[in-house]
Amino acid sequence: MPVKPSDAKLLQEYIEKGWEFHIIDLLYDMKPVEIAELIETLDDESRGKFFALLDVDTASEVIAELSSETREDVVDRMSDKDLARIIEDMNTDDAADLVGDLHAERAERVLAAMSPEDSSDIKSLLKYPEDTAGGIMQHELISARASDTVDEVISQIRQLQSEVDDVQTVYVVDKTRVLIGTVPLVKLILSKPNVEMSGIMDPDPMSVPVKMDQEKVAQIFKKYDEVAMPVVDDKGVLLGRITIDDIVDIIEEEATEDMFRLAGAEEDLLSSSIVKNASTRIPWLFVCWVGGIFITLLIKRFEPTLSQLVGLAAFMPIILGMGGNVASQSVTLVVRGIATGVVSTTDFFATAVKQLAVGFILGGTYGIMLGIIAFFIYPERVRIGIVVGLAIMNSMALAAFMGTALPMLFYKMGKDPAIASGPFVTTAMDLIGVVTYFAIAVVLLF
Amino acid sequence: MPVKPSDAKLLQEYIEKGWEFHIIDLLYDMKPVEIAELIETLDDESRGKFFALLDVDTASEVIAELSSETREDVVDRMSDKDLARIIEDMNTDDAADLVGDLHAERAERVLAAMSPEDSSDIKSLLKYPEDTAGGIMQHELISARASDTVDEVISQIRQLQSEVDDVQTVYVVDKTRVLIGTVPLVKLILSKPNVEMSGIMDPDPMSVPVKMDQEKVAQIFKKYDEVAMPVVDDKGVLLGRITIDDIVDIIEEEATEDMFRLAGAEEDLLSSSIVKNASTRIPWLFVCWVGGIFITLLIKRFEPTLSQLVGLAAFMPIILGMGGNVASQSVTLVVRGIATGVVSTTDFFATAVKQLAVGFILGGTYGIMLGIIAFFIYPERVRIGIVVGLAIMNSMALAAFMGTALPMLFYKMGKDPAIASGPFVTTAMDLIGVVTYFAIAVVLLF
Repeated sequence: MPVKPSDAKLLQEYIEKGWEFHIIDLLYDMKPVEIAELIETLDDESRGKFFALLDVDTASEVIAELSSETREDVVDRMSDKDLARIIEDMNTDDAADLVGDLHAERAERVLAAMSPEDSSDIKSLLKYPEDTAGGIMQHELISARASDTVDEVISQIRQLQSEVDDVQTVYVVDKTRVLIGTVPLVKLILSKPNVEMSGIMDPDPMSVPVKMDQEKVAQIFKKYDEVAMPVVDDKGVLLGRITIDDIVDIIEEEATEDMFRLAGAEEDLLSSSIVKNASTRIPWLFVCWVGGIFITLLIKRFEPTLSQLVGLAAFMPIILGMGGNVASQSVTLVVRGIATGVVSTTDFFATAVKQLAVGFILGGTYGIMLGIIAFFIYPERVRIGIVVGLAIMNSMALAAFMGTALPMLFYKMGKDPAIASGPFVTTAMDLIGVVTYFAIAVVLLF
Repeated sequence: MPVKPSDAKLLQEYIEKGWEFHIIDLLYDMKPVEIAELIETLDDESRGKFFALLDVDTASEVIAELSSETREDVVDRMSDKDLARIIEDMNTDDAADLVGDLHAERAERVLAAMSPEDSSDIKSLLKYPEDTAGGIMQHELISARASDTVDEVISQIRQLQSEVDDVQTVYVVDKTRVLIGTVPLVKLILSKPNVEMSGIMDPDPMSVPVKMDQEKVAQIFKKYDEVAMPVVDDKGVLLGRITIDDIVDIIEEEATEDMFRLAGAEEDLLSSSIVKNASTRIPWLFVCWVGGIFITLLIKRFEPTLSQLVGLAAFMPIILGMGGNVASQSVTLVVRGIATGVVSTTDFFATAVKQLAVGFILGGTYGIMLGIIAFFIYPERVRIGIVVGLAIMNSMALAAFMGTALPMLFYKMGKDPAIASGPFVTTAMDLIGVVTYFAIAVVLLF
């Protein structure tokens, strides 16, 4: 449900006129994410005035929902003290993300303005790399000892309910805080008040190690259909929990990242400035451009061949184009397959060889068809059909094989498989395609 | 955690030897999804034997986790009666999906073998289109009346606990089953036994209409960070609920679909047979191929120009290639932006014009650079540099504009924006690129 334009207009008007009660009335039954969307429509100055009207509770929830640019702008306009109050009120994972985005100096000042517990809480989260389980977990959770009774745990939940959102599970730990069990909330409801956790807990709970890559964490969530998972250190000590809403964001981010890598693009390019947009795209294109120059020089070397039969030039785009299409299909299949877990690189060789066969079928089909067409276009030179037919078959089969094998190889080497759709690889394949084409031509035609 | 190869080997061995107790022992502490992974490694015959060993409860959970081909194979080997028992035990959403995949005749027989309530439950779900809220919801949920007390609701949960997984919310309905409130489980725990639902419910609950497209449902889940949502009909009557695990699958599917559409590929191609693989890819490639023939014919028309200056041919790949790269970057940005909600098509014109500017900057930069290089390659013909410089600028600017405007236009027309990366559009752009190149050459060189 996007922002109603009428609401956005009203809000801007109320802010200009300083009608505070009208504003409060307008926001009355809105959720934080909806208020955040409204704020995105305001100009910079109005945003500052507006934020001053929100209570700390609402402000902290709204700020977590803002886009990164708007958030930066709003945060810049706040005093260190106000910001510290708001951050104290946020979930620790969001708080750590926000503090992590501040300039180092400001982060120091804001942390200093916070309560010692809250600031050390956030500092302890900041030491984990952003894209690991530690970087996305929050400290807010309900934990209990094996000897705690249902009644005791319920009163603990009552105390913590304003701090911990979405309680779904109680984590049972021993005296060194090692995770030893989990109790879903529904079991708590269905058990007698004096039952101990040890009697109702799952004694073999799933957990993720704090250093695990976030993409792997997401795969575990998906596989086991979990909505929250505890995070533990090497010794099994409970450090925090990860909730499904963060996992959903990660799944989306990773898909976006893969798509953009495949095309050499970057997030947010459409909304950024023309200059930034152009300058971000220049490097990838530069590699293509240099590759293109090489292809040009290569073709120049075959100029004697070309001047004898200028018609050969006419088939270059189709030969390179068909190879390029097959390659990008194959690379996309493998990259996405790796991300969703469909492709395992254990059967590396078998998959690549199978795709080579597919490439020969595709290339053979289109090669024969192109050969026939070429005969009609250049009836005076029968062999030109054989040359272009062989060339297109070669370029398509090679593309299917390389487009499958290279991303798997990159992945096995611990690199990003999407590199295989990058300018180096595509240029290399174009070069091979052109060389083979003219080599076949030289051998068969003259 | 992928299947341990040793487990897979052991299982195969036990099945061959008929050691049932060993098998049961092996599976003892495995989760259904892990058993499903093991089954994927078995040959067809062993699968049948193995499934006969599972109790209905486990079998129904395992079957829901199998890949669609393996599931089809397993289901085909079962008697109608056995299958009916297993389906009765599944969640209604999974059950409806499974029945929906059966051949019509078999579906009739299996439904007839089920209890009347279960079969009518499934039939009522099957009438909703697969990609709508109704197609992904399940009937299993906890509902209560506003006058029900906490104690009454808890005893209802106790009765239904084996049927309803992941209870997170109690849905409060009036006597016509219109949804009037929601009570999160944690509130139930913290309230006194004799408190009525009306006193603790959120009286303005969020819900999704049964006809809503699944992609929109997913966006609402993401926006509001929900883990489950009630589904209602036009009159607000509660029909079922959707849980986050299905939403996660949808988000992944939609991303996969977009990526594959951009590259003209299709899911599961890597695991399917060589012939199926090739035949699925042939149509998209056919359009490229026909386009390529047109380009060939077009170039042939410029043969007189080419024979006068055969060097012009050498620049074709770089001019077409750079344009193609810019276009695929732009289309990817827009397609993904629309999917994640970053791109709104309301500022259609402004975005397209901005990208045109970006295209001119990129094209201008590389045009000048290529012009200079061309001079060194063909020092005897100064004007060739001007021709190729202009041609590459033209093809890149056009690509940036069309690559942005076309997917947005398709989306506005209610079509899939990814069509813009399809063979029709890319071939059309290649054609324009080639024509412009030779047209500039004819005007400036001769």
